[in-house]
Amino acid sequence: MAKNIKPRHQDYAQWYLDVIKAAQLADYAPVKGCMVIRPEGYAVWEAIQRDLDRRFRETGHVNAYFPLLIPQSFLAREAEHVEGFAMECAVVTHSALQRGENGLVPAGKLEEPLIVRPTSETVIGYMYSQWVQSYRDLPLLINQWCNVMRWELRTRLFLRTAEFLWQEGHTAHETAEEARAETLRMLDVYADFAEQFLALPVIKGQKTDAEKFPGADTTYSIEALMQDGKALQCATSHYLGQNFAKVFDIKFLGRDQKTEFAYTTSWGASTRLIGAIIMMHSDDDGLILPPYAAPTLAAIVPIFKSDAERQAVAQFAEKVVAALAGPDELAAAARRSSSDAIRGYFVDQMTAQRIVVDWRDARPGDKQYHWEQRGVPLRIEIGPRDVAAGTMVVKRRLDREKETLALGDLSPQWLRQKMGQIHAAMLAKARTFCDQNTRDAQSYDQMKQILTEQGGFVRAWFKPDRAAEAKIKDQIKATVRCILLDEPGDTGPCIFSGEPTQTRVLFAQAY
Amino acid sequence: MAKNIKPRHQDYAQWYLDVIKAAQLADYAPVKGCMVIRPEGYAVWEAIQRDLDRRFRETGHVNAYFPLLIPQSFLAREAEHVEGFAMECAVVTHSALQRGENGLVPAGKLEEPLIVRPTSETVIGYMYSQWVQSYRDLPLLINQWCNVMRWELRTRLFLRTAEFLWQEGHTAHETAEEARAETLRMLDVYADFAEQFLALPVIKGQKTDAEKFPGADTTYSIEALMQDGKALQCATSHYLGQNFAKVFDIKFLGRDQKTEFAYTTSWGASTRLIGAIIMMHSDDDGLILPPYAAPTLAAIVPIFKSDAERQAVAQFAEKVVAALAGPDELAAAARRSSSDAIRGYFVDQMTAQRIVVDWRDARPGDKQYHWEQRGVPLRIEIGPRDVAAGTMVVKRRLDREKETLALGDLSPQWLRQKMGQIHAAMLAKARTFCDQNTRDAQSYDQMKQILTEQGGFVRAWFKPDRAAEAKIKDQIKATVRCILLDEPGDTGPCIFSGEPTQTRVLFAQAY
Repeated sequence: MAKNIKPRHQDYAQWYLDVIKAAQLADYAPVKGCMVIRPEGYAVWEAIQRDLDRRFRETGHVNAYFPLLIPQSFLAREAEHVEGFAMECAVVTHSALQRGENGLVPAGKLEEPLIVRPTSETVIGYMYSQWVQSYRDLPLLINQWCNVMRWELRTRLFLRTAEFLWQEGHTAHETAEEARAETLRMLDVYADFAEQFLALPVIKGQKTDAEKFPGADTTYSIEALMQDGKALQCATSHYLGQNFAKVFDIKFLGRDQKTEFAYTTSWGASTRLIGAIIMMHSDDDGLILPPYAAPTLAAIVPIFKSDAERQAVAQFAEKVVAALAGPDELAAAARRSSSDAIRGYFVDQMTAQRIVVDWRDARPGDKQYHWEQRGVPLRIEIGPRDVAAGTMVVKRRLDREKETLALGDLSPQWLRQKMGQIHAAMLAKARTFCDQNTRDAQSYDQMKQILTEQGGFVRAWFKPDRAAEAKIKDQIKATVRCILLDEPGDTGPCIFSGEPTQTRVLFAQAY
Repeated sequence: MAKNIKPRHQDYAQWYLDVIKAAQLADYAPVKGCMVIRPEGYAVWEAIQRDLDRRFRETGHVNAYFPLLIPQSFLAREAEHVEGFAMECAVVTHSALQRGENGLVPAGKLEEPLIVRPTSETVIGYMYSQWVQSYRDLPLLINQWCNVMRWELRTRLFLRTAEFLWQEGHTAHETAEEARAETLRMLDVYADFAEQFLALPVIKGQKTDAEKFPGADTTYSIEALMQDGKALQCATSHYLGQNFAKVFDIKFLGRDQKTEFAYTTSWGASTRLIGAIIMMHSDDDGLILPPYAAPTLAAIVPIFKSDAERQAVAQFAEKVVAALAGPDELAAAARRSSSDAIRGYFVDQMTAQRIVVDWRDARPGDKQYHWEQRGVPLRIEIGPRDVAAGTMVVKRRLDREKETLALGDLSPQWLRQKMGQIHAAMLAKARTFCDQNTRDAQSYDQMKQILTEQGGFVRAWFKPDRAAEAKIKDQIKATVRCILLDEPGDTGPCIFSGEPTQTRVLFAQAY
């Protein structure tokens, strides 16, 4: 067992932080509640960005960049929106510093305070109003990758920090139907991405009014269940109706020559996804990365005593790299990702995924441990006996399964297939966990018992109601994670009020 | 001549803004001095990012993310640094808004003001001090892509805005030699990138003390000459010595078991590069994009009258796309970048470069004009007669050269070759311009005459001196752009003081 990682059953919250620290994914920054995403963690974010971005492009979206600072008056224009964000925003009031009696003091007071964007509906709405005149200018399908800030009281690396990185899509449409379809299309994009790329089974649903985005008409989300039985919202997609269009005057001359307000949507996913994959997949020995999001696919640990052995092992290791990278990527050997003792070789230049050979001056056991804690899917040991036999031991991080393979067994196809197998195994494991921890409750007491003793999702009839939801949150710390979609049109008694309702929801304690 | 673009010779500054507007590259944001980078402009930035990022990876760097907000006290620790940045920084003083008598007012006053990063040496230095203990932890080779803010009085889209996007590399090394080598290596990376990717010939040099980065030991830059004869600094690379390491306590136990401060570097390039390519390459008809940075490589303009003609032209256009995308990319047809009237087909998924077929309800002439103003390297006209003959007219944006080609002439190789030819032609043209506008001056009066009448670079003997440089700036608005590297060790009389000096510099008026 890893000495630097607290076991999950002893202290799940500490285990989470220990896994992050051991894998060097992130650190707290000197400013309270902010984080530094270290190279190992940022590479995971880059993998997420590449894949999501491709999905956005393929659904017709383009990227753009809107300003960090938003006039305070913009935030205030939409009533729900300002209530939702005013209490947690960073306010810029000055444009310079100057020397005062006790060091630097803010100077150049601004006429109007500026807000560091907590989200960009307002400023993007303002720009869209200038870009849209006719129905011919619609739809506008724009996404932005950027940083945002929300001053949170309780922070937790990746899951909830004052500043975080995300993407926010903002679209404007001619009709409500088109905008609603876009909202659901992007929900599907997120769900497919979570399952196909992060091996994260998710449940799609609609938020209750109490939980929706401030200013939205309807909010949808994907929810995943973490190993401690708490839910985590992984992405959201909002149908904003004409709310922001009316406030920011996004109007167009329609096909019928009448002026109408546009229908808009917004949707986002953030670095929180990194928290989700840590919490869902890792174990007491540290991080386990889903293979498509892993910066390093395989770590080769050479074992040798003499210089002659070292040389033989090095030659064999080069052959292993070449076999895995394939003939098209022979140039990969020249494209090393770093020049230090940990030599990285790109096996796929497009995704920047790599294989490393660990030549550091350290014991092989320590090196194994190093890559294990970083969640690298495969580790390959190569010693003098392996060289002699032309074989090697390949160890899977996920389940410690060992395989002895010959050099001839390796190829880019083998690597891709292996990654596919590991991905499928991780997804199946996570799905089984989620299914086993989703329970039906017929009564409020039963739900209370499940959520306090076992956690997980509780599926129940529930009539959404702000007051009821506040009480449930107060009494059992649970919230409605989502109203289930695609449910048959049955009716049942609300678990809280007993009133008949057609809505079934998932309750859970959540991050 | 384009009616919406002022000719260069009449008003170069207005021409620049008109080109940006006509190509829809960027807009001013509602916050003074900030910009919105529109999709057409942002796609150019993404192309720049992809290529620079690959170059950084291949030289052993990894990406990370550091926080947006920096404690005010951090900025103050390095004396030159604070002088350089205090007067132009955005200051966050509150963490919330609340309802006051006249609307929202800032609330939750912070104990210490926070600065929106103007650059990240300070906060990265602080983190490095925690990550570095031994020489084994060095070198640290990290890059960050992010937004920064400097409150500028006079702004110009891309060239100088309050907020801009950039990358900042920050490295820490065991020895001064290694750090100096890194500084020059990255200068070379920038110079190669500018020439090979942006078709921008640049001059590498060292800044004088008066012009160097606040806190640096030595600053190097690449400088390019714009069409109006003014210079533009395109990227900088700083050797910081132990300045920041001492202030932020980045120290390590060396090979000799002694504790020493690390030697650090930083280097950056920004969205200003988009300004450089606009100013260097475009003409009175609008934007001309260097092909490797062009989001759209070719625009196909269909010409038809009847539905039957439209159908025949559409079929032929699909064949043209398939020929250019090649057999490996046949799936490209399915991977359309948008579903609206302008249909985009990726010819290279990795670089996201595409070909478009313009099916909008507009006149062919207007469509030609549309793509011309957006700087697309190639336009292809396809009408019924072309379909009948199996040929098409391909028009080069750069020089309006027309070629009639058969369908069989087209292939991915042809497209790559064409792009290479256009790139080479643009680089040669720009280099000729730069060479023709670089003049030697033997006297101050001669330099003054050249710079006021002709502009361009003036090469001269000069002994760097803050007072002299301030006077020259005052008198002829020129600054030392750089001290030339690789000059023979001759001695000559300083153009300003007449004192003997071994340094030769380039003077110019600059953006």
